[in-house]
Amino acid sequence: MTTISCPMCTKWDDEPGLRIAELDLCRVILNRDQFFTGYTFVVTRQHVTELFHLDMAARETVMEEVNRVAAALYKLLRPDKINYELLGNMVPHMHWHIIPRFRDDGLWPKPVWSGPHPEKTLTAAQYEARTSQIREHLIL
Amino acid sequence: MTTISCPMCTKWDDEPGLRIAELDLCRVILNRDQFFTGYTFVVTRQHVTELFHLDMAARETVMEEVNRVAAALYKLLRPDKINYELLGNMVPHMHWHIIPRFRDDGLWPKPVWSGPHPEKTLTAAQYEARTSQIREHLIL
Repeated sequence: MTTISCPMCTKWDDEPGLRIAELDLCRVILNRDQFFTGYTFVVTRQHVTELFHLDMAARETVMEEVNRVAAALYKLLRPDKINYELLGNMVPHMHWHIIPRFRDDGLWPKPVWSGPHPEKTLTAAQYEARTSQIREHLIL
Repeated sequence: MTTISCPMCTKWDDEPGLRIAELDLCRVILNRDQFFTGYTFVVTRQHVTELFHLDMAARETVMEEVNRVAAALYKLLRPDKINYELLGNMVPHMHWHIIPRFRDDGLWPKPVWSGPHPEKTLTAAQYEARTSQIREHLIL
């Protein structure tokens, strides 16, 4: 089902500066836009779309990896809530949005899609620091 | 952790006309606003907030119930995509938004929160029909 035009199939290769970790079934990639501090994608290696397209064992592993990333972000950042979103209307290849939310994040308590926000990009060194920190908390 | 002011703790009792099913760890409840046809909540019986607050076995069961609801909605409605969202910024008690999305749903391909939409309420008979249909597909 992989097609050459799927940006999630090639994201790991395309954006080396945003790489956090390769887990058994998913890759963990920082969102380039860090307006929401710690916003991370959990992307299945396989080009699948719906949870029910995975067999039960794979689904459990994917969800444990989603959970592990959320727990790492929580340990690192102590947000007020984590938002977990699997949408895929535009890019169907399964990618979970794991978004630490804070009471002072500018859109709280609304969903991140409820209003516009300025994109926040970091320097290469800042991306390296943030991906390293999240990686360390994933390993712990 | 249950508090008397949590609307998700009492939603099953408060809205009998929206009940779909009680599963092992979650209750399945139709969203009163049916602008997005089939929009359903999967609400944990227990007052928890984050995935990592559940032990692994409970998390697996909750996610299998989420998956089962998504599969039932897919079989019934054949949407173009399912959106799965666990937010909880306003009401932290774990409730998954399971939203069938269609290319002609008015906000496609954007997230459902990206713009306003008119609330669509149904008659009691229509709620009964829709909850029954989803229930039947959950059992199959």
